[in-house]
Amino acid sequence: MTITITAFKDSPDKGRGQARDMRVRWALEEVGQPYDVRLVSFAEMKEPAHLSLQPFGQIPTYEEGEVDLFESGAIVLHIAERYAGLLPKVPRGRARAIAWMFTALNTVEPPILELENAMFFERDKSWHPQRLPMVEDRIRRRLMTLSERLGDADWLDGAFSAGDLVMVGVLRRLKGSSLLAEQPRLFAYVARGEARPAFERAFAAQLAVFTGKQSVFE
Amino acid sequence: MTITITAFKDSPDKGRGQARDMRVRWALEEVGQPYDVRLVSFAEMKEPAHLSLQPFGQIPTYEEGEVDLFESGAIVLHIAERYAGLLPKVPRGRARAIAWMFTALNTVEPPILELENAMFFERDKSWHPQRLPMVEDRIRRRLMTLSERLGDADWLDGAFSAGDLVMVGVLRRLKGSSLLAEQPRLFAYVARGEARPAFERAFAAQLAVFTGKQSVFE
Repeated sequence: MTITITAFKDSPDKGRGQARDMRVRWALEEVGQPYDVRLVSFAEMKEPAHLSLQPFGQIPTYEEGEVDLFESGAIVLHIAERYAGLLPKVPRGRARAIAWMFTALNTVEPPILELENAMFFERDKSWHPQRLPMVEDRIRRRLMTLSERLGDADWLDGAFSAGDLVMVGVLRRLKGSSLLAEQPRLFAYVARGEARPAFERAFAAQLAVFTGKQSVFE
Repeated sequence: MTITITAFKDSPDKGRGQARDMRVRWALEEVGQPYDVRLVSFAEMKEPAHLSLQPFGQIPTYEEGEVDLFESGAIVLHIAERYAGLLPKVPRGRARAIAWMFTALNTVEPPILELENAMFFERDKSWHPQRLPMVEDRIRRRLMTLSERLGDADWLDGAFSAGDLVMVGVLRRLKGSSLLAEQPRLFAYVARGEARPAFERAFAAQLAVFTGKQSVFE
């Protein structure tokens, strides 16, 4: 059965790999599954056809036979359950890899999203210079704990898993900030993730949407 | 095998059911599994014994035989996978129930956490009165979409599932605000969740920790 995902027709980050289809592409590359991509414009994302797949009008979505899904975390988990390579087979290892996925999305990402909101919507507000350090400190505390937990290990809980994939995806949102560089272990952890051939293929595929599109305009 | 979870020894919300062990208790009640509770103080949560179970020094945790887990979302999913009653058996239904769990935790909860941060840490800041409506609007937009998607249905995707359990748990964080009451469908949705016997038993058990503790001081 063909797997089809959706991604931005007009990349907001110029193909730097921040759009959430990156996590899904990476997971599909790790498990060696080919996939089709349907590109959607910002206008198309708010139309009924897309909203029936993704109620919040976002990307990515995932379609495979009778299954249609949204939310990148859920899609990565679905792929990890369906194809070998991203979840340990022993019950404890499997459950813990999933726990790290939830940690990434519900403990580490929320303060990062708060920083993004501050940078996108509050940058011109009078309070922004004073408030920004508070927001950054919330992230810093999470990163310090995560760094201590990682220690000198390559990955969070044994072999590379869907938990690492999602955590690296979340930490990569900090690429434009110095917060990640403050934590050398996490910086190296993200670099290890990005050095994986599956990541590189996924990144190249996402970038190609942007550069390919540019060439049409040139 | 005995299931043991951790919960606050000193309830920050006086047993109103906002602590995240509530979601785990509720899930265990839905699937009819008995469980033990180990209460931990704020000091104990930061000690090595607890940190080895929960790296961020939070509750809840879950132990059952060889499996030890953290993150309420991961624990609810583990319970839902292990015991019948919270996930549809058909692949599409199962995957979509899980998608709603991720939606609750990664799309709906982050702006609510931002509001909580504003109320806890920025209430005395000069910018708070001006900034608060912006934060509330971010939540409002999510709730409007969710309400439209729910429509006149009882639950998000067919029968009550782990997705509804986590979504109701997240929406309940807004109980002290008027944001939930602005959306009558979501208000009724939360009330439907709270009216489930399993929710009532879980709520009573969490409250008993607080009232039981109070009586010791009386």
